Amino acid sequence: MRKPLIFITNDDGVNAKGFRLLVEVAARYGRVIAIAPAEMQSGKSNAITMYQPLFLKKVVDEPDKQIYSLTGTPVDCAKMAFDNLLLGEKVDLALSGINHGSNAGINVLYSGTMGAAMEGSFYGCPSVGLSLDDHDLDADFDGALQVAAMMIEKMLGAQFDEQVCLNVNVPAVRPEELKGIRVCRQTRGFWREEYDCRQDPRGNDYFWLHGAFCNAEPEAEETDEWALKNGYVTVVPVKIDMTNYALMDRLKGML
Amino acid sequence: MRKPLIFITNDDGVNAKGFRLLVEVAARYGRVIAIAPAEMQSGKSNAITMYQPLFLKKVVDEPDKQIYSLTGTPVDCAKMAFDNLLLGEKVDLALSGINHGSNAGINVLYSGTMGAAMEGSFYGCPSVGLSLDDHDLDADFDGALQVAAMMIEKMLGAQFDEQVCLNVNVPAVRPEELKGIRVCRQTRGFWREEYDCRQDPRGNDYFWLHGAFCNAEPEAEETDEWALKNGYVTVVPVKIDMTNYALMDRLKGML
Repeated sequence: MRKPLIFITNDDGVNAKGFRLLVEVAARYGRVIAIAPAEMQSGKSNAITMYQPLFLKKVVDEPDKQIYSLTGTPVDCAKMAFDNLLLGEKVDLALSGINHGSNAGINVLYSGTMGAAMEGSFYGCPSVGLSLDDHDLDADFDGALQVAAMMIEKMLGAQFDEQVCLNVNVPAVRPEELKGIRVCRQTRGFWREEYDCRQDPRGNDYFWLHGAFCNAEPEAEETDEWALKNGYVTVVPVKIDMTNYALMDRLKGML
Repeated sequence: MRKPLIFITNDDGVNAKGFRLLVEVAARYGRVIAIAPAEMQSGKSNAITMYQPLFLKKVVDEPDKQIYSLTGTPVDCAKMAFDNLLLGEKVDLALSGINHGSNAGINVLYSGTMGAAMEGSFYGCPSVGLSLDDHDLDADFDGALQVAAMMIEKMLGAQFDEQVCLNVNVPAVRPEELKGIRVCRQTRGFWREEYDCRQDPRGNDYFWLHGAFCNAEPEAEETDEWALKNGYVTVVPVKIDMTNYALMDRLKGML
């Protein structure tokens, strides 16, 4: 029987703990081809590299597990896999993560992890972005790895007629403390920045981005932010059509 | 009477022709504060700069028209405006563009122009991303500038209770050849890349991204790609909630 083929990428870079652990778990279920950014790519969203060439380097080469690093963004990694390395092969599942830090709520827009997950779904295979609500480089991934294994099993066993991309976030607790899984909607809310302004030795101002998430609906139990903060694993299906249909009639009358 | 305050950014950089012309047009309607990326930021999506400081420099300083350059992404520019330079001021309209190249269809996801437009709308003012379907550095913006003036007038005259972000694309024709305005939905379709592989002088492979857009519904007249290619100015309202509600029940049964 043919082994499932699983593509994996992330945005924290090829040496991140969450990524390496995800590769190990996925390799129990099939052949893994992973391409991860050579450098940290947090906050890179769906960005692509248009004006620089990309260098690809194999860093792990085992029979059913190959890992490459690429000098680009997470979306570049997904494109390099589907349009080059794996061109013509049937990929059964695309995974991105496990991210060090939550991608719940509006983070789906800024996240390189989710950018790559979306990109994977464009190639006709289901995709899952996985994130742990803990930014620590050496975070405890035990709970997230159990969730990852469960998601891989379920997704490999499912058939979808439509494009599927899931944003999965896991609370930073021990596995036995996870309260269960909730299918949620994206929380309304935005980041507000406070710029830390300093002067370089030549007297030029420079700024560090330094923000906080403002949840516009902190009590809404059907949202991913609420569920994540209350101990649930959250699953938000992501839609690629960003059209605001509800606004179309108003605009037609106005323009 | 208070002059409207208009914020402008782009992704082609502070010296791009489309950006400078948009600033001139907008300055006829109000006070303009513009912050544009110091360097080309095409394809940067909603990316933010998390691991480098940002340098801000004033490049034009007239009573009602100030232009700054910032060493960051388009979204960084919007954040720097709303959370720093213009903090506490009521901004009446956020504009991004005029981009050199179309942002119709799936480009809304990759576009730095649209990333910044979305970010502007998060701060409670209506936002419009404007793009011309011509990548030429010295493209003819006459038609796009007429559309920009019309959009500025209409948006400054409108009241919205909800978050509004518009993706406006203009065909590369003379103004008198524009067939009118169409409110559309985002076209289904994706980019497929062909990687141009070369070797550097030390024998390392490197790749250039080189893609083509594959329209999944080329005959659909209600889509922005069709309308743009057929001579219409297209307006797609953009929604920030990416939840795929249609998939939630299926997932609840499955997980």
